Amino acid sequence: MAVNEYYTADVQGPFEEFELGAFPLSTGFTLPEARLAYKTHGTLNEARDNAILLPHMYTGTLAFMDAYVGEGRPLDPTTYFIIQPSQLGSGMGSSPSNTPPPFNGAAFPPVAIVDDVHAQHRLITEHFGIETLQLVSGWSMGGQQTYGWAVQYPDMVKRAMPIAATAVTPEHNRMFIDLHTQLLTDDPAWEGGFYTDSHAVHRGLRRHAEALALMGITAEALRVQAYRELGFQTRDDWQRGFVEAYFLPMDPNNLLCTARKWRAGEIGAQDADAALGRITARTRAVAFNGDLFFPPEVIEEDAARIAAGEFRSIGSVWGHFTMFGLREGDVAEIDAMYAEILAS
Amino acid sequence: MAVNEYYTADVQGPFEEFELGAFPLSTGFTLPEARLAYKTHGTLNEARDNAILLPHMYTGTLAFMDAYVGEGRPLDPTTYFIIQPSQLGSGMGSSPSNTPPPFNGAAFPPVAIVDDVHAQHRLITEHFGIETLQLVSGWSMGGQQTYGWAVQYPDMVKRAMPIAATAVTPEHNRMFIDLHTQLLTDDPAWEGGFYTDSHAVHRGLRRHAEALALMGITAEALRVQAYRELGFQTRDDWQRGFVEAYFLPMDPNNLLCTARKWRAGEIGAQDADAALGRITARTRAVAFNGDLFFPPEVIEEDAARIAAGEFRSIGSVWGHFTMFGLREGDVAEIDAMYAEILAS
Repeated sequence: MAVNEYYTADVQGPFEEFELGAFPLSTGFTLPEARLAYKTHGTLNEARDNAILLPHMYTGTLAFMDAYVGEGRPLDPTTYFIIQPSQLGSGMGSSPSNTPPPFNGAAFPPVAIVDDVHAQHRLITEHFGIETLQLVSGWSMGGQQTYGWAVQYPDMVKRAMPIAATAVTPEHNRMFIDLHTQLLTDDPAWEGGFYTDSHAVHRGLRRHAEALALMGITAEALRVQAYRELGFQTRDDWQRGFVEAYFLPMDPNNLLCTARKWRAGEIGAQDADAALGRITARTRAVAFNGDLFFPPEVIEEDAARIAAGEFRSIGSVWGHFTMFGLREGDVAEIDAMYAEILAS
Repeated sequence: MAVNEYYTADVQGPFEEFELGAFPLSTGFTLPEARLAYKTHGTLNEARDNAILLPHMYTGTLAFMDAYVGEGRPLDPTTYFIIQPSQLGSGMGSSPSNTPPPFNGAAFPPVAIVDDVHAQHRLITEHFGIETLQLVSGWSMGGQQTYGWAVQYPDMVKRAMPIAATAVTPEHNRMFIDLHTQLLTDDPAWEGGFYTDSHAVHRGLRRHAEALALMGITAEALRVQAYRELGFQTRDDWQRGFVEAYFLPMDPNNLLCTARKWRAGEIGAQDADAALGRITARTRAVAFNGDLFFPPEVIEEDAARIAAGEFRSIGSVWGHFTMFGLREGDVAEIDAMYAEILAS
């Protein structure tokens, strides 16, 4: 198998790996010599009580949340010890793209969000000796993982801020995921998932990217030509230069593995009522205006069923993609959300 | 070329054809021996002033609007002479699927909405001798054709009711159309558009159908499992039994030809201001709540720029697909819109 450079430290920056050993998954497989990749900012204090955990989204890597961490900002590494874990299957740590046979490529075992949370819990407790997290927060599937933490380890999570995520994956989301994973596997270069070079599946990756972008933005973003603010001349220019450029380096099996997690949305309870009823963390559920993946009205209903839950809706025109920080004002609004929940 | 039975009277019911002769298209081709298919309900009165024209939508046929025509309903054939024209390229009348070489299949010339309107105008004036239409109305691209009529022949159109359509095709719509036409042509059975059997392109037709349904409905429709009201057990069941069943009989080149029209949205004026400024018809622009193709707020803006324009938003959970009449209450609301504009 050719090494996919996208998932290396050369591209993503330095990161660590935590050895999970033979790791039993909720999906009925045991992943041998499993590894959870992660990176940190700042220093764990002596009381081990200044940690923040930031899981990432579908298509993301552990480096994504770097964009929201910085001195003088709410997620300040001079105050907090910030841990950014990978997802299993995401390309960093154990993943289809880097696991030897028999669990290589399309034969990588299915992984659930509860498994990610379990692996992250082992890192947090066994490696760092942390018992309390000041905050768990993530966007999209990072938000689903945030729910997973708040549901499975309520005593450890003081604050939770799921962003653009719902406790149960909406069926319309699943409809999208079914379509866009088929777009990957429809590519003749897919070869049953045992392609020799992930870049050969570029047609599938392009379609997949186009579909994700269609639902990831709002009609209004194109109407006001918001892509011009990013230096693109036309929507096509933006789609090629931003959307396709973002996806083309990725590995299709990694995407399928993590899309499966997103689709299933197993956060550790059979239904939304049971899940939300277990949450004791001070929770702020943040929606992005016009989000076609995780509708604000559903996020609002989730928040209303959490004991210490509140709902906020922010964002200008970029819908689900707001977290990419394509507008300065959007980033400021997200920062304000972090400042408020950490001050509470 | 195998005959596609979907476009025959056996499936669609009886229809007529009007001979257009050598028909010059705005796109720079002349279509030889062009034919416009149509059907009618009711009788043209002696004054020839009781006619209503109902153009159809993308993927539709001239039979679609039958669902809204009936004795005792607003579109009453005992009062009105109701004309349902086909679109060029739709499969009935001159289309990729029935035109001999050199204009067969993928070589069928591009057609614009202005060309459809021009062909329909010839039918209305030359064949029926009609000078005034009581109402022009259609859904989606039928609504774009309604705008085309109101813009190009303002003196002939007394009332216009575009439903779930905007005067300019939204860029987000174009983004969708680009993706979903690629899903058709990505099918290995596509063979450059010169397949011998349209049914062989069933993988492309299925993907195309899945993409259209994803944007055609709302997340809320799936959340409340509205498909159960139609006798389907699951979303998958509905997608196979309704969405794919609807698309699989169609001809891919017919879809591409008409998708091109939808994408370009040429209604006969260079820009929206010019187009809307020309309209003298009493116009009611109707939006469907939650429509992801033609956003209600854009339809509302269009209506505000028409001299005698007003805006209404209706529909329960089915978004753009509301016109399929999947809920009794939706059909009643649409009927009420027809009753009100005809009474005005």
